[in-house]
Amino acid sequence: VGSSRIVLDITTSLDGYVAGPNQTLEEPLGAGGERLHDWMTRLASFKSRHGQEGGEVDGESEAHEAFLARVGAYVMGRRMFSGGEGPWADDPKSSGWWGEDPPFGAPVFVVTHQAREALELEGTTFTFVTEGVESAVAQARDAADGKDVAVIGGANIADECLRAGLLDELRIHVAPILLGGGARLFEGVPPGTWRFTSVRDSPYAVHFELEPVRTAQ
Amino acid sequence: VGSSRIVLDITTSLDGYVAGPNQTLEEPLGAGGERLHDWMTRLASFKSRHGQEGGEVDGESEAHEAFLARVGAYVMGRRMFSGGEGPWADDPKSSGWWGEDPPFGAPVFVVTHQAREALELEGTTFTFVTEGVESAVAQARDAADGKDVAVIGGANIADECLRAGLLDELRIHVAPILLGGGARLFEGVPPGTWRFTSVRDSPYAVHFELEPVRTAQ
Repeated sequence: VGSSRIVLDITTSLDGYVAGPNQTLEEPLGAGGERLHDWMTRLASFKSRHGQEGGEVDGESEAHEAFLARVGAYVMGRRMFSGGEGPWADDPKSSGWWGEDPPFGAPVFVVTHQAREALELEGTTFTFVTEGVESAVAQARDAADGKDVAVIGGANIADECLRAGLLDELRIHVAPILLGGGARLFEGVPPGTWRFTSVRDSPYAVHFELEPVRTAQ
Repeated sequence: VGSSRIVLDITTSLDGYVAGPNQTLEEPLGAGGERLHDWMTRLASFKSRHGQEGGEVDGESEAHEAFLARVGAYVMGRRMFSGGEGPWADDPKSSGWWGEDPPFGAPVFVVTHQAREALELEGTTFTFVTEGVESAVAQARDAADGKDVAVIGGANIADECLRAGLLDELRIHVAPILLGGGARLFEGVPPGTWRFTSVRDSPYAVHFELEPVRTAQ
């Protein structure tokens, strides 16, 4: 258990948004937000997990594949899971966005205020955690069985993990777009010092990885 | 004149601030903000312009030097010039931060609400522009004599240039620190699509350059 790393993996626009303005059920990533993930949706490593043929195989897909292979469990927020809020009975996407065959292939822990039994779909079990993000990360760490835990959004969940000092690694993908508004990453997180461990780029995104500089007291 | 490029050159923290919280005359870059520029202050290309000996010579200093060689004029905001606001008579740094020998070696246009005669110091003339950022950029373009114009901050001036569509190129240096508050870049700028033209990294910063994708109407 001790060797699992807790990793934030998230894509932002150049102006720091992980979703555009006006998120709706029709546009869950807000106005213009779909383009955040153009770097990823073109890749074979993405398409194969979403039941699509083809896609590019290159250094970017290899890095994406290598990261996914490290992950034993995921943590996400309620809005990333379904786009909804409030009671599950009123949530049109209460089984998530991904249909019967979600792309995770690993346990997913969804942080929510609305208690609910776990949802088992093909290859992925969603567990709903009402005790907050620290509990979700702890449960994910147990479930990951020595592999890493990926925290994948949204902005609130990411920022709560940063505030709680839970993250061993940041993987920030910066897309070359300005969204002009929406859900901003890094709101109200405390000061901290990190170091770059890797930087890669493509025409579609700059990917940087960082780890915290933890000074001995 | 037509070939001058208008370039934003600015360093942000990982959380998107170009200065930390609580900017004062003692700490003009706010709490922790000095560390934003560690990547630059270590370089020979910086030290030689600030009357210091030594410094590192490496790919980062070469890129810094090559950029400075392109620049024929600078645009900055009043706060970047002096840290003050209101009438110049009350401004303790009314001759700027840099003493008698400023590091620019080119005309500098300072956007301010307070009219004032130009200030000639060794190798650098500061011109104070009260007609707004578009006028400052136009005057800088004339003064640059075919070379490029560097817009170097602060956040408000940068964002005004983005809103007005004045920029041909962004040079964004991302330092691996979280500042937790302060002057945030990219506030209220409109959506837009850019492309990466260069990405370089060092242990101290990731430098990315972008140009706008201008679609023909």
